[in-house]
Amino acid sequence: MLYLVGLGLGDETDITLKGLEVVKKSARVYLEAYTSILLVDKSILESYYGREVIIADREMVESSSDEILEGADTVDVAFLVVGDPFGATTHTDLVIRAREKSIPVRTVPNASILSAIGAAGLQLYHFGQTVSMVFFTDNWRPASFYDRIRENRSIGLHTLVLLDIKVKEQSLENMARGRKIYEPPRYMTVGQCAQQMLEIEEEKKEGVYGPESLAVGAARVGGETEKFVAGTLKELCDADDILGGPLHSLILLGTGTHELEHEYVREFALDKENWDRIWAENYQSKK
Amino acid sequence: MLYLVGLGLGDETDITLKGLEVVKKSARVYLEAYTSILLVDKSILESYYGREVIIADREMVESSSDEILEGADTVDVAFLVVGDPFGATTHTDLVIRAREKSIPVRTVPNASILSAIGAAGLQLYHFGQTVSMVFFTDNWRPASFYDRIRENRSIGLHTLVLLDIKVKEQSLENMARGRKIYEPPRYMTVGQCAQQMLEIEEEKKEGVYGPESLAVGAARVGGETEKFVAGTLKELCDADDILGGPLHSLILLGTGTHELEHEYVREFALDKENWDRIWAENYQSKK
Repeated sequence: MLYLVGLGLGDETDITLKGLEVVKKSARVYLEAYTSILLVDKSILESYYGREVIIADREMVESSSDEILEGADTVDVAFLVVGDPFGATTHTDLVIRAREKSIPVRTVPNASILSAIGAAGLQLYHFGQTVSMVFFTDNWRPASFYDRIRENRSIGLHTLVLLDIKVKEQSLENMARGRKIYEPPRYMTVGQCAQQMLEIEEEKKEGVYGPESLAVGAARVGGETEKFVAGTLKELCDADDILGGPLHSLILLGTGTHELEHEYVREFALDKENWDRIWAENYQSKK
Repeated sequence: MLYLVGLGLGDETDITLKGLEVVKKSARVYLEAYTSILLVDKSILESYYGREVIIADREMVESSSDEILEGADTVDVAFLVVGDPFGATTHTDLVIRAREKSIPVRTVPNASILSAIGAAGLQLYHFGQTVSMVFFTDNWRPASFYDRIRENRSIGLHTLVLLDIKVKEQSLENMARGRKIYEPPRYMTVGQCAQQMLEIEEEKKEGVYGPESLAVGAARVGGETEKFVAGTLKELCDADDILGGPLHSLILLGTGTHELEHEYVREFALDKENWDRIWAENYQSKK
């Protein structure tokens, strides 16, 4: 049996009792470590589980899935995923390959950023499609998020923006020379995300949002040090110090924001006066 | 401290280790039991936790929240919620009342139907706003879901429909006579939901969806007996026997469904030939 086990969002104690039982009985335990991270190190997981944990990087999952699935028709293999196995990313490919080999698959769900983000005080019923923001480079500035946000805003909905992480990346030079030397991990911050969003609006000038659009920056959602900061996109460009370490996410408010949501979120506002002014002018009773 | 503790979706072993620790150390343990249910009885939770569990019905949470919050400034109180505390419903009111009393609040997240539904094979990135379906009566047929689905479909997105549950309801007669006699619990099925959706389309005739619209019926998502059935809304009207017991949910596919999603979901199709025909005619390459 192949088990996809969600680890939740915070630390080693966020695994479910069902998940822990699977980890303890499995012949091999893999940790998917390229789409999200826990707030604790692998060694802490290993000592908590009493098991060796094999890091599965993107290369292994995408090119060597046979290795992961080896023997899973007769023994149990656990594939651990931060958050929920179907949360921020899906592992459909691995499941389809298991199916092809007639390996049964079972999922152990857990908390996902998609619902834990509700702690910001915005109703999950009022979210549209989730988008991702990647690190821009000089010649790669993918902006499809802009159209998705437009769609969400056209019907008044909030947008959750999930932020890029770069783990085990090689510099172009090291890649060209075939040197397996990796850059330190990078986690996009709310400030970087807000900045990139404003750059794209500057380029496209279609008014999907702007520097005065209201948003919430979130850090370490679901963890003990969870932190929310509310403000305009412009204000959030400079709020990384207040938010602290990774992982970050951002919510762009929809114009259909309800009074009750507003009341809850404004508690997190960097500048309550500014927040209230913009709320009254551009959001209140817009849906 | 007031702890909102998610229990996950299946049975007593779906609590996280962090959540279990909170339950064990709390002075009082409440179980919110009117917006969702676990697949096991309260007595099983009590013996698993080694703690008495107080059922908190809607009346208690909405009218007697002071009782729940009593003393929570000095002792720990655990408020258990099936799924994630911010999942299908939010408990914003309780949190706001705790805030007013300067009682600190902490949340222990867990799996929610909002992400666990990904097991159906549809990308969570392609879902719009979630809607709820309530049991219709002769003179109460709330249909706001219809406009929400139209909005989602206008931008190609899937819609998750969460289905009504009726727990501890009184008949009109018993209510009028002040008799505290309660009806047996009722859980809406996929068949009832599909039927009500088609009735509203019949009335409104705006073509938001129809009998041939593709959908997925889901039962006991996240549990060991999780079951998915794919078909047209018309086919799903009669698929309750295949799905089995509660809880049920329904996903209405968006026209933006990707080829990979289609491949995965068609495995669950009641009638693959019919499914493929409708897919090719009305969905493929529509986004």
